[in-house]
Amino acid sequence: MNLNNIRIVLVNTSHPGNIGSAARAMKTMGLTRLYLVGPHEFPSHKADEMASGAVDILKNAVVTETLDEAIADCGLVIGTSARSRTIPWPMLTPRECGEKSAQESNVHQVAVIFGREQSGLTNEELHRCHFHIQIPSNPEYSSLNLAAAVQVIAYELRVASEMPSAFEWDYRFANEKEMEGFYLHLEKVLVALDFLKPEAPRQLMTRLRRLFNRARLDEMEMNILRGILGAVEKKMK
Amino acid sequence: MNLNNIRIVLVNTSHPGNIGSAARAMKTMGLTRLYLVGPHEFPSHKADEMASGAVDILKNAVVTETLDEAIADCGLVIGTSARSRTIPWPMLTPRECGEKSAQESNVHQVAVIFGREQSGLTNEELHRCHFHIQIPSNPEYSSLNLAAAVQVIAYELRVASEMPSAFEWDYRFANEKEMEGFYLHLEKVLVALDFLKPEAPRQLMTRLRRLFNRARLDEMEMNILRGILGAVEKKMK
Repeated sequence: MNLNNIRIVLVNTSHPGNIGSAARAMKTMGLTRLYLVGPHEFPSHKADEMASGAVDILKNAVVTETLDEAIADCGLVIGTSARSRTIPWPMLTPRECGEKSAQESNVHQVAVIFGREQSGLTNEELHRCHFHIQIPSNPEYSSLNLAAAVQVIAYELRVASEMPSAFEWDYRFANEKEMEGFYLHLEKVLVALDFLKPEAPRQLMTRLRRLFNRARLDEMEMNILRGILGAVEKKMK
Repeated sequence: MNLNNIRIVLVNTSHPGNIGSAARAMKTMGLTRLYLVGPHEFPSHKADEMASGAVDILKNAVVTETLDEAIADCGLVIGTSARSRTIPWPMLTPRECGEKSAQESNVHQVAVIFGREQSGLTNEELHRCHFHIQIPSNPEYSSLNLAAAVQVIAYELRVASEMPSAFEWDYRFANEKEMEGFYLHLEKVLVALDFLKPEAPRQLMTRLRRLFNRARLDEMEMNILRGILGAVEKKMK
């Protein structure tokens, strides 16, 4: 397992103190790579103060404007989710998240995404993920703060990192950028086929995203699917 | 599993804010019973503030002067320890701590003890425990704060509470008060036997504590051992 291939992505964090506490939680478990998507206030004294001995994590944090930029090169993307969604998505427990990330961090970049303090991740953001995790909690009081949630996930990543791993695959998995390219291509072709009606898209693309994100396309499979889409386009010309 | 039979014991906490954060961490995972041994400042506004929606845990917290009072009725006592000790003690991972507590909380009271922010638990306090837990961490930066440590342990307790349990035993286990009575009796007899020299006790009692705490005496075994000690005393008279 390579903890350096695992990044924690915080989306639109309101309170800089939470960014600092999250950095501290990460460092206690040996995680180093922090991505901040549109933080409200960063860098910040309050963040440095809460980070305590983990200011190096803040110093090296990557700040991006969009989630896309933060996960473009990742082969495994996991999003934390407090509530169940209209369309059920493949779920991992934090433990499974640790194990899966442990295995796959040898082969590609892994991102675990945490949403806004009040409202979490949007549906659109969650649909970018291969898996969702829900941290088990008291149904009557489930308000883990951001740093506490990062602590639990980072802890499971560390535990998994200390276990032997045996994940092998013949082709590398497609990364997020390739997947997004594929979805754009797929959508274009489906529209051209009059199968997807832009004025009434319903949940079609969401369901297709769920399918292919769940399947985890490797490079070879991706090439095959793109080839099919290209062949369809050629035929229609 | 009965989460109501599991208590979190904080020893000599310096900062009331940490007590509040620990209460919040407990409540998110469904734990309710907080014991505070000689807190520096409690009750406290800062504690209430950090507890957020978990002030009920603080309201119901039991404050004691000594660790003894906080764990006297417990059949399983687990202490958190940051460093390894001169005499190695049976260790649990946080996960094993969750599983063991889950099993045994059906039969008796369980305590998980957290030490002072700076210095943890003393050796004497640690020797009162059946097991020690060490939270896996980055060897170069292992400074989990108190609430973060409580969060990780509480999380493992919750995960274990959601799993089926199959722990059965014919007699109830001796509680801490009975164990202390036994150790006092044992020590008295060993001194009377000139086996234990009060002026040079070495690690004898510590090693015996480790042995019997590891074995986990049940009520029947306790009666037998006390019977043997009594028989020895009678013989010497």
